[in-house]
Amino acid sequence: MRIEFTQDYIENLKEIIENKNDTAASALMAEAHAADIAEIYDELSIDQAKYLFLLIEDREKAADVLAELDDDDRERFMSELPSDVIASKFIDHMDSDDAADVLADLSEETRDEVLKHVKDLDQAGDIVDLLNYDEDTAGGLMQKELVVVDIESTVASATLEIRRQAEGIEHVFYVYVNNKDNILQGALSLKRLLLASPEQKIKDILVKDIISVRVDMSAEEAAKLAQKYDLIALPVVDSIGRLLGRITIDDLVDVLREEADHDYQLMSGLSQEVEHSDSVFRLTRARLPWLFVGLIGGILAARVIGVFEHSLAENAAMAFFIPLIAAMGGNVGVQSSSIVVQGLANNSFSTESTFRKILKELLVASVNGVALAGITFVFNLLTLDSMALTVAVSISLFAVIIIASVIGTFIPLLLHRLKIDPALATGPFITSANDILGLFIYLAISGLTFHYFH
Amino acid sequence: MRIEFTQDYIENLKEIIENKNDTAASALMAEAHAADIAEIYDELSIDQAKYLFLLIEDREKAADVLAELDDDDRERFMSELPSDVIASKFIDHMDSDDAADVLADLSEETRDEVLKHVKDLDQAGDIVDLLNYDEDTAGGLMQKELVVVDIESTVASATLEIRRQAEGIEHVFYVYVNNKDNILQGALSLKRLLLASPEQKIKDILVKDIISVRVDMSAEEAAKLAQKYDLIALPVVDSIGRLLGRITIDDLVDVLREEADHDYQLMSGLSQEVEHSDSVFRLTRARLPWLFVGLIGGILAARVIGVFEHSLAENAAMAFFIPLIAAMGGNVGVQSSSIVVQGLANNSFSTESTFRKILKELLVASVNGVALAGITFVFNLLTLDSMALTVAVSISLFAVIIIASVIGTFIPLLLHRLKIDPALATGPFITSANDILGLFIYLAISGLTFHYFH
Repeated sequence: MRIEFTQDYIENLKEIIENKNDTAASALMAEAHAADIAEIYDELSIDQAKYLFLLIEDREKAADVLAELDDDDRERFMSELPSDVIASKFIDHMDSDDAADVLADLSEETRDEVLKHVKDLDQAGDIVDLLNYDEDTAGGLMQKELVVVDIESTVASATLEIRRQAEGIEHVFYVYVNNKDNILQGALSLKRLLLASPEQKIKDILVKDIISVRVDMSAEEAAKLAQKYDLIALPVVDSIGRLLGRITIDDLVDVLREEADHDYQLMSGLSQEVEHSDSVFRLTRARLPWLFVGLIGGILAARVIGVFEHSLAENAAMAFFIPLIAAMGGNVGVQSSSIVVQGLANNSFSTESTFRKILKELLVASVNGVALAGITFVFNLLTLDSMALTVAVSISLFAVIIIASVIGTFIPLLLHRLKIDPALATGPFITSANDILGLFIYLAISGLTFHYFH
Repeated sequence: MRIEFTQDYIENLKEIIENKNDTAASALMAEAHAADIAEIYDELSIDQAKYLFLLIEDREKAADVLAELDDDDRERFMSELPSDVIASKFIDHMDSDDAADVLADLSEETRDEVLKHVKDLDQAGDIVDLLNYDEDTAGGLMQKELVVVDIESTVASATLEIRRQAEGIEHVFYVYVNNKDNILQGALSLKRLLLASPEQKIKDILVKDIISVRVDMSAEEAAKLAQKYDLIALPVVDSIGRLLGRITIDDLVDVLREEADHDYQLMSGLSQEVEHSDSVFRLTRARLPWLFVGLIGGILAARVIGVFEHSLAENAAMAFFIPLIAAMGGNVGVQSSSIVVQGLANNSFSTESTFRKILKELLVASVNGVALAGITFVFNLLTLDSMALTVAVSISLFAVIIIASVIGTFIPLLLHRLKIDPALATGPFITSANDILGLFIYLAISGLTFHYFH
């Protein structure tokens, strides 16, 4: 059941915990979904959480709760538990991929200690295998739990085999089909099996041309494949095609979401993922680095303006449009680069060359530039008494829009080619550079026009 | 099969189309996945696409291709086809939700024309039903294709029933269980059915407490539910609990992605979703509106500075730090509001009140403010000869960081409470406001300090 969390619910729960009312606490836990229980964690002390989580009777739910906790919370929570409790209460009841993720957070020593207490040796073996893979690869996402039948079997014998294997698997999704060398040959849906007659051969009804991923493919690439082809599970194979495991849609969705969050976070000027509920220290650590980059940008900008101090002292009005030019360079640059970053992130297919992309960007920038510089020109003509400033602002505005567009398009493409995250281009670094360049252009041009129109 | 698109592949394909080589074209289409074929569309003229798509022998694949096209492309493509071809080649082979989406793009007249040609009256009826729902609701996402059995039946009779219903359904995911009034009672996985013995009663093995959504729930809310509880299909019910349809994970993933793209796009200063491959006109239309807002902000900033023209003429150095102050206000504001926007988007559970949130934000801002204003103070003390400016810059920097943080936190919370998209707070509107406010503070303070230190 979904729980509507209210202040009252939490108060009531805390009272139950304080009174050590086991029956009431375990009834509340029986009612709540694992994802909701994991969310209560933030509201409890570690001792309260320990009491509560160990009272969850459904062991798979308890395991899910642990899997759903934030990494930091989980680490802190587990450090309070003896290894045999971690193994028997949680790891024994987890899918192999979740178990490996949980154990990856522990010190090597504790991990070995916990593994010794895992009852099912197959499960322990699977976890040790999975711990070998980098968490950012298909191998790091996959689970060992899957249903596989031999290509030479009949529907009848395969059904028996599936019944045996499926017991401990939450979602079957597909039945995979291997040859005798464990090389993946294709897959079947349970539905297809249900519709087939018992004496049919698996090899006559399987879907052969299925999409699988290599164990060393990046997690992001695998997730994009699944999204593009609407797949709900991806089989994972080694370099010679042996079936190693599968990745299920819920984990793929999490990867896609993390990827999107990461790009969003970079554009927000945050150097790590944070939530408002994080500690002040963590929030500050996430925010200060990019602000510091912005500070350096601002100090450099001060230096650029300093070069023109003499002109400014003569014509103070030159200062009026400094924010406009700086903001416009930044805005245009972010627009351009975010379009490129989104395109790269969505793997939008395009045979357009970089040269053509920049050419097109130039065209868009010119239209925007003419429109904005034109409006500004007319407005300033009517409201300013300085023709020099009017001309300078519009020329610089146009130039800044063009330059910021090209830089905004080119930099993420360049970063991508250099195998650096192109989303970095949307952060404060490029914005600051655009600001400074824009300022220089503006001050230089207005210096000239004031000289000329004098 | 996945196709690696290269310039060569496209050239070859175009040549085949030009020579009207039906065999070669249909072989290429047989090989390619619907999602890939949909991507080729951008490279072809409408006539080329028409020739190619009508050659796809697998009719469900052809239907998938149409469903995968961008809305604009699809509309243009369909306008070239007679209604009976749209019905027989595409709509007849689509899931009801995709069919409804496709038909929603057509004029009412064409839509009725197409519906007349749909062979299966059940399919036509389902489509007409689905067209009644707003596309942003659960009803707008759901499909009528699902497998449902009676709660009073046995496993044996249910299996027969499922076999009958499942024929035309790609993914069964869950078997839903209704009572005789079509009120949803629970669900079963095919696996559970496979593990049960034939004489067992459905009512003894179903999972009762399943999560369903009301037909009028927002699409976004439904998608977040599915993500939180790791669901692969969501049953949709009406106000008295009758089962109306189901939403499958692929559509839910699309909603989550659109939501994330939308927030990203707002922060980039784009007023609509665009890709680099869109037309120059469309790209300009997406970019110009927010740039125009920035322009107005810049002109207002010019006015604010204009008020201080006299002080600036006396102390030109005051202009040096205009970009720093403006940029810092913008950066801090975007950081603060994006953390709030992400929190709201992820539905992070928090019992913290708005007041406490802002208090915490104040604390983080103070730490950042002291650090950055401190560094700037020391740096300026060593490099500037004006004590007045050194003091003014650091005081203003601190003030701007505090004010921008509070505004950045408060505005998205306010928008959310007013049922307006909080992501608007990350766009140029608030940034410009922060810039202007920051400038005013800086110029006012430096006016004072120059007066005082003189």
